[in-house]
Amino acid sequence: MTDTQIISVAALEDKVRSIFQSHGLTAANAQAVAHVIVAGERDNCKSHGIYRIEGCLRVLAAGKVTPDAVPEVVDSGKAVLEVDAHGGFSNPAFYAAKDALVARAKDTGLAALVIRDCLHFSALWHDVEALAEEGLAALSMCPSYSFVAPAGGKEPLLGTNPMAFGWPRAGAYPYVFDFATSVAARGEIELHRRAGTPIPEGWAVDRDGHPTTDPEAALDGAMLTFGGHKGSAISTMIELLSGALLGEFMSKEALDFMGGGDLLPRHGALILALDPTTFAARSGRDPIAEGERLLSAIPAQGARLPSERRFKAREAAMRDGILLSTAEMEQLDRFLREGLSATD
Amino acid sequence: MTDTQIISVAALEDKVRSIFQSHGLTAANAQAVAHVIVAGERDNCKSHGIYRIEGCLRVLAAGKVTPDAVPEVVDSGKAVLEVDAHGGFSNPAFYAAKDALVARAKDTGLAALVIRDCLHFSALWHDVEALAEEGLAALSMCPSYSFVAPAGGKEPLLGTNPMAFGWPRAGAYPYVFDFATSVAARGEIELHRRAGTPIPEGWAVDRDGHPTTDPEAALDGAMLTFGGHKGSAISTMIELLSGALLGEFMSKEALDFMGGGDLLPRHGALILALDPTTFAARSGRDPIAEGERLLSAIPAQGARLPSERRFKAREAAMRDGILLSTAEMEQLDRFLREGLSATD
Repeated sequence: MTDTQIISVAALEDKVRSIFQSHGLTAANAQAVAHVIVAGERDNCKSHGIYRIEGCLRVLAAGKVTPDAVPEVVDSGKAVLEVDAHGGFSNPAFYAAKDALVARAKDTGLAALVIRDCLHFSALWHDVEALAEEGLAALSMCPSYSFVAPAGGKEPLLGTNPMAFGWPRAGAYPYVFDFATSVAARGEIELHRRAGTPIPEGWAVDRDGHPTTDPEAALDGAMLTFGGHKGSAISTMIELLSGALLGEFMSKEALDFMGGGDLLPRHGALILALDPTTFAARSGRDPIAEGERLLSAIPAQGARLPSERRFKAREAAMRDGILLSTAEMEQLDRFLREGLSATD
Repeated sequence: MTDTQIISVAALEDKVRSIFQSHGLTAANAQAVAHVIVAGERDNCKSHGIYRIEGCLRVLAAGKVTPDAVPEVVDSGKAVLEVDAHGGFSNPAFYAAKDALVARAKDTGLAALVIRDCLHFSALWHDVEALAEEGLAALSMCPSYSFVAPAGGKEPLLGTNPMAFGWPRAGAYPYVFDFATSVAARGEIELHRRAGTPIPEGWAVDRDGHPTTDPEAALDGAMLTFGGHKGSAISTMIELLSGALLGEFMSKEALDFMGGGDLLPRHGALILALDPTTFAARSGRDPIAEGERLLSAIPAQGARLPSERRFKAREAAMRDGILLSTAEMEQLDRFLREGLSATD
């Protein structure tokens, strides 16, 4: 008996989709959620892979996400498209609007997608990468839970507010970055607390605003943004652009709505899509070839492109399958059985 | 005899406009450049105030900027507007296109302004603040000169690539940030070199990619971005969105074109304008009031909003005038005489 198993990407996606269908998601919703979760596992982003299933099922059990929501695309004919997730997961909403967003961006040069009222659990790279594969540059951001203090402050106000960007490359994976604007994830501080080890300096302040390496004091105080006052300004911009601008929750409201940070957050998201062909047309230059001169010069000097490790993991997974522990596989089967018994 | 003098904002703007007209700028170009330079001085941004006049005159003397360029607005009717500065300063180009950008953003919800082929010397806050005063959220970015290495690298490739953001507030100065994505300005390293003092850790690497506090080694090596790999990713995004996307110079080409970093750079710029009224319409919420809940909570916990000091300096300058040294005033008069004698 071995304690690991290999499963193909397609087989894992089937299994995860079945889990979500057995928990009441429509086929379309289960497919979208499973696709994104398995993409995370495939790329060896374990924090956004099958690990997320349990979190999704807990929100379902709490009745804080609508399993059979039907995303509604609202197209005013302007440069701003909207999709109302109607309280469902964000991923089916994105897929429901993606083709319209791509078409609008190619038509107008620049378009935005507003995702309203969604349960958000996935990394943002998935969406910007999908748009980059259509030849568009894309910028995505969303609020989260207010665990982070602004620079110079001491009270939690901002979310860990992630931001992702994608840029198309010819014959290569797109240029993609995706990161939280907090120094660390809250889960990392929690791991230090459980292990009884100090957190690195610069991660957090205590409730009086003093720097702390004590994970308890950090969880009782506030996390910090990356990059000092510059990162804090960017995080504030993300609250404004993906919260206030849209008339959707900011991070503090998202936390209040869920009654604490134990469940995955519900809020909106903003995606901007820019069409290089339109923007560069009058210059007579090829924007993708120009971008390539920059991007190829980064690994040429020994530096790493963001997402490089993720794309390598993806190639291995597509070729060899995904390695899961027997405990992970058993958990998947248990999730499936629990769902089936509840719906029978 | 005193070594300082007070001059009103309006009188200083008159004087600076006269200087530029005496050096061959059209009245409209001189007015735009003078307005932005005096706005910097008024806000006590000395590095972007009248200090910049000499740099502008040097580029004029080198024949690398067109003093009588007439900005040409190109409107395809899409969400992307363009203004070709035709080798002139960026500021008249922005003013030439501003009203069209505001109107388009309010019509389509989201619009971009591409500034092509401009000589760029001014802070970006000016443009995003002007758009915020029209009720729009605005994001602006541009390349500069390639003095900065990507995270993990050692060779200059990226610019100091500034980024600015503005958000409208009711009855208050807008929320505005504007910063370079490098840790420090190149001029600050130069000042340390002249003073023979070490630079702080984290500012730069030597030509072998090792961290250095030696300003000579730093100038010979590469500067670093703020925020480690996250700041480096943002700086790369700025190269792509305000260089490659537009088919305009990236920072390396800008440096090559000018034959070194002694003169102010020539490149393009990208401004995105978002209309909160359009974006929030379907939510039934007031996006400006929502933003206010976030922004008022920042000073309430003892943290500072970006630009706070600048706005305070502005109020003092508008009320009491601007304090200049006699040496500064004499230099302004000399710039004016030199221009008049050359054009006579």
